[in-house]
Amino acid sequence: MCEDEEIFEGEVWIQGDRILYVGKGEIPDDIYADMPEKCIIWDREIDCRKNLLMPGFKNAHTHSGMTLLRSYADDLPLSEWLNNKIFPIEAKMTAGDIYELSRLAVLEYLTSGITAVFDMYLTPLSIADAFDDMGMRCVQVGAVNNFSQSPEMVEEMYQTLNHKSPLQSYIIGFHAEYTCSKNLLEQICALAHKYKAPVFTHLAETENEVAGCVERYGMTPLAFLDSLGMFDYGGGGYHCVHMTPKDIAIMQKRGLYAVTNPGSNTKLASGIAPVSDFLKAGVKVAIGTDGPASNNCLDMFREMFLVTGLAKLREKDASAVDAMEVLKMATVNGALAMGLHEADVLAAGKLADIIMIDLSQPNMRPQNNIPKNLVYSGSKQNVAMTMVGGEILYEKGIFYTKESPECIYKKTDNILRKIIK
Amino acid sequence: MCEDEEIFEGEVWIQGDRILYVGKGEIPDDIYADMPEKCIIWDREIDCRKNLLMPGFKNAHTHSGMTLLRSYADDLPLSEWLNNKIFPIEAKMTAGDIYELSRLAVLEYLTSGITAVFDMYLTPLSIADAFDDMGMRCVQVGAVNNFSQSPEMVEEMYQTLNHKSPLQSYIIGFHAEYTCSKNLLEQICALAHKYKAPVFTHLAETENEVAGCVERYGMTPLAFLDSLGMFDYGGGGYHCVHMTPKDIAIMQKRGLYAVTNPGSNTKLASGIAPVSDFLKAGVKVAIGTDGPASNNCLDMFREMFLVTGLAKLREKDASAVDAMEVLKMATVNGALAMGLHEADVLAAGKLADIIMIDLSQPNMRPQNNIPKNLVYSGSKQNVAMTMVGGEILYEKGIFYTKESPECIYKKTDNILRKIIK
Repeated sequence: MCEDEEIFEGEVWIQGDRILYVGKGEIPDDIYADMPEKCIIWDREIDCRKNLLMPGFKNAHTHSGMTLLRSYADDLPLSEWLNNKIFPIEAKMTAGDIYELSRLAVLEYLTSGITAVFDMYLTPLSIADAFDDMGMRCVQVGAVNNFSQSPEMVEEMYQTLNHKSPLQSYIIGFHAEYTCSKNLLEQICALAHKYKAPVFTHLAETENEVAGCVERYGMTPLAFLDSLGMFDYGGGGYHCVHMTPKDIAIMQKRGLYAVTNPGSNTKLASGIAPVSDFLKAGVKVAIGTDGPASNNCLDMFREMFLVTGLAKLREKDASAVDAMEVLKMATVNGALAMGLHEADVLAAGKLADIIMIDLSQPNMRPQNNIPKNLVYSGSKQNVAMTMVGGEILYEKGIFYTKESPECIYKKTDNILRKIIK
Repeated sequence: MCEDEEIFEGEVWIQGDRILYVGKGEIPDDIYADMPEKCIIWDREIDCRKNLLMPGFKNAHTHSGMTLLRSYADDLPLSEWLNNKIFPIEAKMTAGDIYELSRLAVLEYLTSGITAVFDMYLTPLSIADAFDDMGMRCVQVGAVNNFSQSPEMVEEMYQTLNHKSPLQSYIIGFHAEYTCSKNLLEQICALAHKYKAPVFTHLAETENEVAGCVERYGMTPLAFLDSLGMFDYGGGGYHCVHMTPKDIAIMQKRGLYAVTNPGSNTKLASGIAPVSDFLKAGVKVAIGTDGPASNNCLDMFREMFLVTGLAKLREKDASAVDAMEVLKMATVNGALAMGLHEADVLAAGKLADIIMIDLSQPNMRPQNNIPKNLVYSGSKQNVAMTMVGGEILYEKGIFYTKESPECIYKKTDNILRKIIK
């Protein structure tokens, strides 16, 4: 699957962390130009056996370090879940713990064909180390609020993590309107203006959140944030469930990304995002799993089905949000939202963030329509290979990360014993 | 996972198609009584390595032969989908085609840990052959309507398929109220009374279906069918989306099973079933995938998440329908609805329809709560082994069916070329 969304039989060549060639096999002569004596030494040639190579999925909203809290406190009302269960545990987690817990999340991302994540959590430096050590691409976003982090820290991380390694980057952000004072929001806004940079935040996830902001400022969260100039250089919101037509017009006007999180919004009973309305207004939609405490899995296949399925339910229209549109959200749009303009499609010069989908599994047969098979029938079981920056990190059920799953489980089990059990 | 829902470390012994022993390792002496000279010859001993053995999932509503139509006609309004796309293709399918297409479905069931299905489709004899040849358990249900099958055929199949093989059985049923004349329904009802047998049918799947019945008979479909005496010996309905409180009271009074199909109801924009109301009224709920044309995958993990997730959305309550309740629906309740009283739980004397769940995958870590991990994070990728009637049919990605997936794909690809392409 390639730039123009066409599926064809052909070849993909990779050199270093980049794609050298994508095509039907008519190799251009100049491809040899940079190679010594026009001689190619192949590290490895993979026969894909008519399986599908496509750009890796971009998980455009998650909190990787929350793996500790998976299945720790489900089936509870939202406020009880957050205040009595999640926050007290998070208070006990160290940067070292979050390093290990993020590595556990990376293992799961790989099984789901995710090659980059947009991560918001507590300890950016240890998170960046975790992703670097796993060989995984990560775009972090500021999580500042009244209780943790600070605009100074966001600025420092912005400067540090955008130059740390080829796999890491950082985008200005804050937790949410309802957890930040107006003064704090103004400081974040000033940062965005200083760097002419986009800003991301949790936005309109619940009805209560929107009602609270209307009470505080007489405006919806997005209208209020926009009135501060927060999105003068773009950005977007996570969740975007309870949006007014005026909100959607602001999204459209500012070119903001709506990152939808249907698994989390379903499990926490937050509601169904107006994805059809976004598309009609020309607002770009990306997809995220949210963190493993609120979903609980990190599985883009489940999210893709939910994006279209919930839109169909919401609109009472089985034709709402076509499968190809969903695939674009999960790959291209996610990459663009995250500033990964070189990891959006398979094309020469782009980053080699590639996955192979096993089309020989029964859920991919017959092949009436491969994109629809992927979105409506696909599962983690179909991920035959996950490659990030030219490195194969997962192939046919085996992890090729620096440390083995068993070592990582041992460490996360110790954290579980220390903090919860 | 065992009869009292407890998870413990122990052993499961199997002899023939039955479970001989389940327990913590204190083997009772009389277990050797039936064995020659108290000597056991082990065929195979499997070290489960702390993975989970549990009863196989029961897919309590499907149309296996519709694999041909997977991804053939999605993203269309329901009536256009059914009348212009599905029916014309089905008219071209032979009993032999449905044999092959059902075998393709069985391969997918095995990857999802499904050990028995409740199948309603066009050619019962070739379907029974398909399941027998794959070694898979199948309960078929009558699909009679104004256009195909007949009460005589339902009676003949009832007599034939309940004695064909240990893997096959048959339950009286009809397609739906809206596709059957009153006279036809009265004949089915007479059959149910003759055999004192339960009856299953599609029920209240769409708003239109219910409105049509109210117009025809001044009653909801369930109230009308019950007024004929259709459910005097029990049974149940597939879908059960648009149910009145009076309908739910009838379900409760007659001990009927509500078989919910959330994937299909989502993708076809039919609505969300009132699962919380069923549970409050003491109505037993089972889970089905529906056919691969309307879902499109045959994946009980997706269905389990949707059952609880959609209930949470419908009730605006994150505590609605607990994970353990969902696991019971997908195993015990499905078995009881299908009349498989010997395949409901893991206990000595029960059928050895057992699956192994790989708990060493990252989506199952950490182990705060294994049932919640299964329902909220589980995927086909976690199915390490599927055993039906003591035979391992799928293990670590390899199919041990009589014919290989490649052979079956070749045949279903030929059918695709013949009928569609």
